[in-house]
Amino acid sequence: MTYDRTHVAAWAAPDRGEPLARTTIERREVGANDVLITIEYAGICHSDIHTVSGDWGPQPFPVVPGHEIVGTVAEVGDAVTRHQVGDRVGVGCLVNACRECVNCRRGDEQFCLNGSVGTYAATDRDGSTTQGGYSTHVVVDADFVLSVPEGLDPAAAAPLLCAGITTYSPLKRWAAGPGKKVAVLGLGGLGHMAVKLAHAMGAEVSVLSQSLKKQEDAERLGADHYYATSDPATFDRLAGEFDLLLSTVSVSLDVNAYLRLLAVDGALVNVGAPPRAFNVAPMSLIYGRHTLAGSMIGGIAETQEMLDFCAEHGIGSEIEVIAADAVNEAYERVLASDVRYRFVIDAATIR
Amino acid sequence: MTYDRTHVAAWAAPDRGEPLARTTIERREVGANDVLITIEYAGICHSDIHTVSGDWGPQPFPVVPGHEIVGTVAEVGDAVTRHQVGDRVGVGCLVNACRECVNCRRGDEQFCLNGSVGTYAATDRDGSTTQGGYSTHVVVDADFVLSVPEGLDPAAAAPLLCAGITTYSPLKRWAAGPGKKVAVLGLGGLGHMAVKLAHAMGAEVSVLSQSLKKQEDAERLGADHYYATSDPATFDRLAGEFDLLLSTVSVSLDVNAYLRLLAVDGALVNVGAPPRAFNVAPMSLIYGRHTLAGSMIGGIAETQEMLDFCAEHGIGSEIEVIAADAVNEAYERVLASDVRYRFVIDAATIR
Repeated sequence: MTYDRTHVAAWAAPDRGEPLARTTIERREVGANDVLITIEYAGICHSDIHTVSGDWGPQPFPVVPGHEIVGTVAEVGDAVTRHQVGDRVGVGCLVNACRECVNCRRGDEQFCLNGSVGTYAATDRDGSTTQGGYSTHVVVDADFVLSVPEGLDPAAAAPLLCAGITTYSPLKRWAAGPGKKVAVLGLGGLGHMAVKLAHAMGAEVSVLSQSLKKQEDAERLGADHYYATSDPATFDRLAGEFDLLLSTVSVSLDVNAYLRLLAVDGALVNVGAPPRAFNVAPMSLIYGRHTLAGSMIGGIAETQEMLDFCAEHGIGSEIEVIAADAVNEAYERVLASDVRYRFVIDAATIR
Repeated sequence: MTYDRTHVAAWAAPDRGEPLARTTIERREVGANDVLITIEYAGICHSDIHTVSGDWGPQPFPVVPGHEIVGTVAEVGDAVTRHQVGDRVGVGCLVNACRECVNCRRGDEQFCLNGSVGTYAATDRDGSTTQGGYSTHVVVDADFVLSVPEGLDPAAAAPLLCAGITTYSPLKRWAAGPGKKVAVLGLGGLGHMAVKLAHAMGAEVSVLSQSLKKQEDAERLGADHYYATSDPATFDRLAGEFDLLLSTVSVSLDVNAYLRLLAVDGALVNVGAPPRAFNVAPMSLIYGRHTLAGSMIGGIAETQEMLDFCAEHGIGSEIEVIAADAVNEAYERVLASDVRYRFVIDAATIR
C-alpha cells in the first residue's frame, strides 16, 4: 500500500462524545528531523476517553486519539541519525517540546516551560493540530521517537509508552527496590504495570484493590501481598507499613487514611488525577515526615530507559488486541473496568 | 544552693489559660542512666503557649513548659558515660522513647512506635508526668541529653533544641545546599532559624513574608532575596522558582498557590501545623512532580548533628533574654508576633 500523506486512514471522534469513526487525515511532510512511522499497534488509554468525552475541556475535533504507539520506521528525514528505516520504534504522550528550557535540558520534556506538545489534540510548534496513533501512519520528530528493543512483543509494548512510563518514573524516583515496601493502589491499566515494574525492581509489592476479585491476577503479575480496601481492618493492619504507595486511581480518596499506611519518610504518589481536591490534615504529613506527591508520565530519555528495563526483564503490558472497528465497544468496556488490562488496536485493521 | 529534689523551683501554669506562677515541683531521683542538669536557660516556644492555653486538648495541670533547655551537668547516674559533671548540655522536645522499635533504631525517636515522651505534660515510661525547663533543675535520661559544643552561646543555643532541629531536619532531608533555591515562608522563631541554617548549608535563600517589614532582618540573617506575599505579583514572579519551600507558619494557606512556586521535583514542607486541612488540587502535585510534605522536630542523633553544625557555623538563635517573672508578658508578646525572634528565660532568675 502506498503512503499518501494527504489521505492517511485513522479512527477519529468527530465531535465531543460521539462514537469514533473511520476517516482520513493529513500528516505533514517528512521534515529533515522527522520520522515516518508505519503504525503496528496503538494502545487505548483512559486519557483518550476523557479527551473525546470532553472531560478535559473543549478539543479540536475531529480528534484521533492514541499515545501508546508502536510501529516501524518507513522513512527518515535527512538529518535523522538515531533511527533507520525498518527500526521498531515507539511514540508516547509527547511529540514535541522546546528542548532548550531548564526542564527540557534536564530531561523533563513533559514539563517544558514553553509547552510540551501532546501526541493528539494539541497544537504543535508549527501551529498544526496533532493527531494520534489510531491510524496507519504518523510523522514525528526523531527526538521524540523511542527505540523499542528487540525481544519486546510490539503489541504488549505499546501501553508501555504511557502506562509504563507513568508508573516507572515515580517508582524510580521514590526508589522502589530491594528492602522497600511498595503498595499499588488500583489494579487497572496503570496499576498492573506498576506491579510488574516494582516487582522487577526488587521491591516487596502489595496491591490495594477495592475487592479481592483480582487477587490471583495480582499474584501472577508479581504482587507479594494483596489487600481489599473495602475491608476497614486493612487500614489498621497496614498502618505505617509502606515506603511508597502509588495511587493509580482517579477517584477521590480519603487521603489521610492512605497517608496513615506510610512508614516514616514514606510517600503517597498520585498518577491518577481525581476530580476533587485532596483534603490533607497537616498532621498526616508532619507525623511520620510523610510526602504526598504527584507524577506525570516521564521524559524522553527516561522513557527509553523504561523500555530498555522492560526488555531486560521481559515485561510487557497484559493486553487484549482488538480490531479498529471494536474501538467504541472497547471504550465502553474500559469505562466499565472490564479489561485486563489494556486494549491495543491492531493498526493493520485500519484501512 | 543545695538541690532538694522534692522542692525544685519552677514556673507553672496552674490550670488551663491561667497565668504562669512560681511554684515548686518534685524531680525524680537520679537513676543509673540519668543526668541531673542545672538549667541555665529555657527558650519559650509557641508550643508552650498552645499547650497551657488548652489549644491541644486537656493537659495534666499544673504544667511547667519548656523544651528548649540548656544547662550544666550537676550529677550523673552510675551507668552514664556520655556526660560528665560540669558538661554543658541541652534537652529538647523528647526525654524518652522505647529505643527498640524500628523508628527508634533508625534514629527517629520522635516517631517511636511505642510512644515518645515529650519534655513536659507527658506521661513518662515510669508513669510519672514530665515537667519542662522553666525550672532550676531537671533529671533526664542520658540518652536524651545533648552535648552543647563549646563556642555556642548557651542562651542563644537554647532555641536550637526545638526551633533549630525543627528546621534543620527538613532542610537536610530535602537537600538544601549549593545550587538549591530554598524559600522560607514566615520569619518567626522557626523561620529565622531556617534562614540561618539554609544559608549556612550553602543554599540560595529567599524569605516569603506577609509584608516587607522584616526585610532588613532577613538579609542580615542570611537571606539572598525577600518577597512580600501580600503582593499578588509575587506569585507570578516566582512561579516554578524553588526547589524547597519550608513553611513555618501555622495559619491555613492557599497551598496550591505555594505549590505553583516549586520547580520540577520541588517540595513544600510544613513544619507549622495549620488548624485546617490543606485543600490540594491533584494537578498541583502531578504537574511538576511536586511534593507536599511535613516534618516534626528530629531524632536525637540528628539533633546532636544540628548542634555541631551550628557550632561549626557560629549559628545561634536571635534572642531576648528575660527574667522568669516576665514570662506571662512574653507570652502576650509572642501571641502578638512581637519578638525577634525568641524569648529565653534566664533560669538564674527562678528562685
